[in-house]
Amino acid sequence: MSDAKIRRPRAETPKGFRDYFGAEVTERKAMLDKIAAVYHRYGFDPLETSAVETVESLGKFLPDVDRPNEGVFAWQEDEADWLALRYDLTAPLARVAAQYRNDLPSPYRRYAMGPVWRNEKPGPGRFRQFYQCDADTVGAPSVAADAEICAMLADALEAAGIERGDYVVKVNNRKVLNGVMEVAGVLDPSDPEKFADERGIVLRAIDKIDRLGVEGVRALLGEGRKDASGDFTKGAGLSESQIRVLMQFIQAKMYIDQELALGSVKFARIDHPAAEIFHAAALRQDSPTKKALVLRNLFTCSYLGEIVGNSAQGKQGALELFEIAFTLGQLGYGPDRIVIDPGVVRGLGYYTGPVYEAELTFEILDEKGRKRQFGSVAGGGRYDDLVKRFTGQSVPATGVSIGVDRLLAALHAKGRISTDTTGPVVVTVMDRDRMADYMSMVSDLRNAGIRAETYLGNPKNFGNQLKYADKRNSPIAIIQGGNEADAGTVILKDLILGAKIAQNATLEEWKDRPAQVEVPRADLVAAVRRMLDQN
Amino acid sequence: MSDAKIRRPRAETPKGFRDYFGAEVTERKAMLDKIAAVYHRYGFDPLETSAVETVESLGKFLPDVDRPNEGVFAWQEDEADWLALRYDLTAPLARVAAQYRNDLPSPYRRYAMGPVWRNEKPGPGRFRQFYQCDADTVGAPSVAADAEICAMLADALEAAGIERGDYVVKVNNRKVLNGVMEVAGVLDPSDPEKFADERGIVLRAIDKIDRLGVEGVRALLGEGRKDASGDFTKGAGLSESQIRVLMQFIQAKMYIDQELALGSVKFARIDHPAAEIFHAAALRQDSPTKKALVLRNLFTCSYLGEIVGNSAQGKQGALELFEIAFTLGQLGYGPDRIVIDPGVVRGLGYYTGPVYEAELTFEILDEKGRKRQFGSVAGGGRYDDLVKRFTGQSVPATGVSIGVDRLLAALHAKGRISTDTTGPVVVTVMDRDRMADYMSMVSDLRNAGIRAETYLGNPKNFGNQLKYADKRNSPIAIIQGGNEADAGTVILKDLILGAKIAQNATLEEWKDRPAQVEVPRADLVAAVRRMLDQN
Repeated sequence: MSDAKIRRPRAETPKGFRDYFGAEVTERKAMLDKIAAVYHRYGFDPLETSAVETVESLGKFLPDVDRPNEGVFAWQEDEADWLALRYDLTAPLARVAAQYRNDLPSPYRRYAMGPVWRNEKPGPGRFRQFYQCDADTVGAPSVAADAEICAMLADALEAAGIERGDYVVKVNNRKVLNGVMEVAGVLDPSDPEKFADERGIVLRAIDKIDRLGVEGVRALLGEGRKDASGDFTKGAGLSESQIRVLMQFIQAKMYIDQELALGSVKFARIDHPAAEIFHAAALRQDSPTKKALVLRNLFTCSYLGEIVGNSAQGKQGALELFEIAFTLGQLGYGPDRIVIDPGVVRGLGYYTGPVYEAELTFEILDEKGRKRQFGSVAGGGRYDDLVKRFTGQSVPATGVSIGVDRLLAALHAKGRISTDTTGPVVVTVMDRDRMADYMSMVSDLRNAGIRAETYLGNPKNFGNQLKYADKRNSPIAIIQGGNEADAGTVILKDLILGAKIAQNATLEEWKDRPAQVEVPRADLVAAVRRMLDQN
Repeated sequence: MSDAKIRRPRAETPKGFRDYFGAEVTERKAMLDKIAAVYHRYGFDPLETSAVETVESLGKFLPDVDRPNEGVFAWQEDEADWLALRYDLTAPLARVAAQYRNDLPSPYRRYAMGPVWRNEKPGPGRFRQFYQCDADTVGAPSVAADAEICAMLADALEAAGIERGDYVVKVNNRKVLNGVMEVAGVLDPSDPEKFADERGIVLRAIDKIDRLGVEGVRALLGEGRKDASGDFTKGAGLSESQIRVLMQFIQAKMYIDQELALGSVKFARIDHPAAEIFHAAALRQDSPTKKALVLRNLFTCSYLGEIVGNSAQGKQGALELFEIAFTLGQLGYGPDRIVIDPGVVRGLGYYTGPVYEAELTFEILDEKGRKRQFGSVAGGGRYDDLVKRFTGQSVPATGVSIGVDRLLAALHAKGRISTDTTGPVVVTVMDRDRMADYMSMVSDLRNAGIRAETYLGNPKNFGNQLKYADKRNSPIAIIQGGNEADAGTVILKDLILGAKIAQNATLEEWKDRPAQVEVPRADLVAAVRRMLDQN
């Protein structure tokens, strides 16, 4: 059988998957280490679950509400369970919280970092394996837990390198949304299944407000919407008055901002012991701007309390939002970092209370060269029913997930990544019989903590050795031919200076500092260190 | 539909998979960081390939030669490729080396760390997902690359915490083995397919020598072997004289050790320029022990050169082993760390030259309480044909894989793991209306770099809060009830001292250092730091 007849396998990453090389790996690791340090300081412990779960345990909680059955990579064990790759880090946490409920501390506070897999159609920048970095508190009924996660998210973004002012954590509450749905007549507390389809459309429409704009959302709440390509998306079919209630809610933050700018906010009383303290604190501020800033979250909650009318759930939601805003305000996290914004709904169906999302507010150029806001890099919320699936007992939980690749992309866009991409010192091979000598030079360098290696390719063509050093971004090449060996010396070639000279240096500079020196073999380590320090 | 009628999913890790909690995650990470630092210093760059590969690209290279088609988790894409989880980190590297061959530096030196998956029957301590930690040089024809990997493996083990003397890296060469097979008449260089079955049995028999002993291996080379349970394994059916040749090879190291002990080694001349230098260096040593140590690897190579008789491949193999031993000797890695040992074959069929294995030499107790050597924690070798599968062109490569979980287990067994398992300072909740106050205490502590958290469970039962702090291994609980709030103070409860007192402290000690102090709220951070420093 000749080689030509064998069908060779294609050397290809599977569609939608990718490989990470060198700095791509170390940059992500450095970022995750910084975030983990914040999670640790907040008292969270690491958890690493297996990549594989039973399909039964994973459940059907993928964000894509249109195709709840799809989206996972799954296979059947021989005449046994179906297994699948995890699609997020929350479903495995719910399984762990149920499985080890008698052994884990309660509340159980854990963070997790690792790849997740989605069996979706890949697209540009859209991969089927990507990293998430989560922190959750399981068994914490009070919204203090949600407030803490929001503060921690802000701290984690800053630790990763996103500067204050370049991000905002937006907070909403599903209960307020449900209250508004009640008022708009698309939720009947006595028959929760009724109007489920309409509510699905409403949720998805709000979630897309950044892309569709206010008019697009309004159209989807009504008859429907024709997009640029002519495709028609059927709407929820709500009446004008229903739509008005919902739009009032979605645009609450914008309304408050306008009113604050006009100085004409009406402050409806919030039925909470802290409201007065908060209001008084705001009034003590020495400038109208600071006053407005402190009041902003408070006013939004107050306004939401009005919109939800008599809905008990809605009122409870507005109060919870107030508690979150108040607690965060006391800790110094004002609306410049964390803002109450009913425009946020989060796609996932399983949220039951506060939801939050971190948005980066600076602009980047999209693939078509248009300016746009960078957008969301993290999100989460309260999900009190995920553990109940397993145990039958409701377990209150809340948590956040950071989209690792998007956050890394943002840090790159802002020039906040500083990776040391310096390659190793390369000891070239002039005489292959003296390999042990070259390796002992490298060994001396390594023992002194200097990254170094011998050229291990075919040494015949010396030019290839220097090209290799170049490709590795090597700072220095070491050369010892027969003459040098006889003289007991080595030559150090400064590749960084060499590259500079080749590009644009003048003769003067070249004179001052030679790009090549010959030193005694015994001085190799010291000479290399000197040359490294110069660059 | 009532809750009772819903069939609840089982909260279970799939069979053969496991979860890693807290210290299990951080200990592994700390160990991998130390190993990565060694790999980096040696000039290796990180690579992280996707967990998923096409089945076509993975090939059939699983160690289990009895079932080459099994062992992977695989599934079919909709009317497209079969995909599978990677079973090691070498197959993806071969794919990457072929796919990016025009862009990568050559040699390409990469390290990789991550989980791999095997669809095998799980057993005690045998999981279907586990970590590997590899380093490989692709495109390096000379055995200097193999020598370097062996030295790096020794350094990595020491960096991880295995002390010198507690491990040995054993090196062999498939070419020597093939040479011996030629001499024994089970390999015909002109018809490589002939006797393939016999050679398979020979390989597997040698690989099991630790478990089967010399007599067990001898039986497998001959008619076969009945094990303790009465099961019969068919042997290779070799003759007494064939078996004698093979056993001479397998036991070469033992023979050399004996001869060295008797002082009666015959030194056959090795046809290599360095052999004389090496021999002369050995003779310069000032004690017979040191002399023997330096000579040991040299003598083994010389002895192997004799056994392989006229086999060209065998002679080449013995020379390569000599070069490796010589180079390593020059770098200071003597037979106390790296030893030429023909007893090592490595199960994998794809090795083509030097093979190596790191063994831990200390004893532990097995599950039945019997003493046994800890055994292998890493292995690798030269595989010149893996990239050729894709490109048709032979690419020389060599590399090592560390079994991360086994190495961690070894570090635990030797008490070489020191993890800080201290939990967070826990601020208890006496009055839930003052949640913001408690959270602001925690915030002050965190801002001072102290790990801290508010108790976020139901605060009703104060005993539960202290039990929680205990379960988290919390050093200090902070308490502020109504009286303290009015007085502007907080109480610090030293939980570590408290636990000591509860166990065995005398009244005297208790007097000297109270387990509980009350301090002004403004002094919280300083007082916590003082108490932490005392413990």
